[in-house]
Amino acid sequence: MSSMASSYKPEQARVPSALPLPSPPLTKFNIGLCQLSVTGDKKRNISHAKNAIEEAASKGAKLVLLPEIWNSPYSNDSFPVYAEDIDAGGDASPSTAMLSEVSKRLKITIIGGSIPERFGDRLYNTCCVFGTDGELKAKHRKIHLFDIDIPGKITFMESKTLTAGETPTIVDTEVGRIGIGICYDIRFQELAMIYAARGAHLLCYPGAFNMTTGPLHWELLQRARATDNQLYVATCSPARDSGAGYTAWGHSTLVGPFGEVLATTEHEEAIIIGEIDYSVLEQRRTSLPLNKQRRGDLYQLVDVQRLDSK
Amino acid sequence: MSSMASSYKPEQARVPSALPLPSPPLTKFNIGLCQLSVTGDKKRNISHAKNAIEEAASKGAKLVLLPEIWNSPYSNDSFPVYAEDIDAGGDASPSTAMLSEVSKRLKITIIGGSIPERFGDRLYNTCCVFGTDGELKAKHRKIHLFDIDIPGKITFMESKTLTAGETPTIVDTEVGRIGIGICYDIRFQELAMIYAARGAHLLCYPGAFNMTTGPLHWELLQRARATDNQLYVATCSPARDSGAGYTAWGHSTLVGPFGEVLATTEHEEAIIIGEIDYSVLEQRRTSLPLNKQRRGDLYQLVDVQRLDSK
Repeated sequence: MSSMASSYKPEQARVPSALPLPSPPLTKFNIGLCQLSVTGDKKRNISHAKNAIEEAASKGAKLVLLPEIWNSPYSNDSFPVYAEDIDAGGDASPSTAMLSEVSKRLKITIIGGSIPERFGDRLYNTCCVFGTDGELKAKHRKIHLFDIDIPGKITFMESKTLTAGETPTIVDTEVGRIGIGICYDIRFQELAMIYAARGAHLLCYPGAFNMTTGPLHWELLQRARATDNQLYVATCSPARDSGAGYTAWGHSTLVGPFGEVLATTEHEEAIIIGEIDYSVLEQRRTSLPLNKQRRGDLYQLVDVQRLDSK
Repeated sequence: MSSMASSYKPEQARVPSALPLPSPPLTKFNIGLCQLSVTGDKKRNISHAKNAIEEAASKGAKLVLLPEIWNSPYSNDSFPVYAEDIDAGGDASPSTAMLSEVSKRLKITIIGGSIPERFGDRLYNTCCVFGTDGELKAKHRKIHLFDIDIPGKITFMESKTLTAGETPTIVDTEVGRIGIGICYDIRFQELAMIYAARGAHLLCYPGAFNMTTGPLHWELLQRARATDNQLYVATCSPARDSGAGYTAWGHSTLVGPFGEVLATTEHEEAIIIGEIDYSVLEQRRTSLPLNKQRRGDLYQLVDVQRLDSK
């Protein structure tokens, strides 16, 4: 049978071939998910997020994840008003200046949820990652814009104001190799598969699912991405505000590589602390060796940018 | 924005490009899932399955799905003993002869779960599909063999006795275009993605998950495949027999294209009738137009055999 196994070409199921998991400085640590209330007052949102990050760190979090669009109401009217020029920094981006300061001071890694980013005449929905030195390590612009229309339930067209990002974002941090997606990005299983093939330990999805797709799919998609790709998945939503134009589902969650919910909450504001242990990834992948069982002779997932960069 | 959308190349996210859904004769019908008890008596298993199919048809099922390995105990010791030469047919394959006779007499489509197949000196785990004329329309040999080792929980190595199939199997029937997978095949999301790109309305997975992976992943994987690919998923397990060497989880289920559980059961023997309506697929795909939103500029799933056949 072993002579046949090689004809299945598992190494060709990912193009280029999948990379092994790297060895980060920290392999066992606490993550903090800050399910924040968000208001129309940007200054308050920033100081509120700062307090929450400090509280999460005080509870032992070495990695903190914020929600999608945490400095602004989630609406096409608000995006241009609250947008910041992240590359200019300083006063042009008080939200990310805060993240930089806090991450450096507390020596933690921050996956900064997302904020509306202004770049020339374009707007993006952008996640900034800060390292323990306070440096901006990566910037993910939401790749898949949230354009959906479920009649009588939820209609939203981010593409009215936003431009989609042009690249997947995976970043090496002190707490592992982390792939980033924002909300609707989680629906596209290919992105998670690309990240897994690039050696991700953890996928972080800031997201604001709504009262229709939230109960239907929010937990399902997280558990599916974790189980299929045998890695950790963390999500962070804004707290629910029934008075807001867009009502978030909440339910920020940490999922383990068997699809098990390790920490979660309801819809109110909350700081959730969960434990991540990357040695579990090896265990799961040894028990269920999916990476060695894929049929590269039948299907191949191409990571276009990684292939082109070779 | 529309000028940008084309640069995302959604049509290139599948290679070759995805096919549209075909229009089968029946687009709204009942499916019957026969969660059968299985014993060591092959003759009894065959007559028992026959009775169940007749009962499902009498309840209105136009499509009947049977469990994985329904004519034999599920064990490496049993596979060679119970295996049949399907291609020889007749007395060499009493299990499929029964399926052919019943499908023709009742004018129904049968996805015949699976049985051990003997082909020369090889054994396969094989699903036979019979049309309303009693003809064998397709034969799926399990592509991904169940070789797992969760210490203290479940260890099984199908590859000790079985050979893996060499091709995905999708078949046009009176009740739609149906992609077939057997049990462990469901863990490989790429297979479901290939079937969806080939225009499948429905994926059928006969499967016998166990008492460890059943509660963890059985429903999760079905709901994920349905939601991600926006199609129906039906599964059928043997009924649980705690005295058997391998204890099946049961819980045969029909899932709709939003990941909603439409019909399911516990672990006892049962015949489950569920309604399928393919017009729902169009609705879901209009509401959430994932196929038009994929980023073919960033990732591409290659269907190797379909590409080679061009």
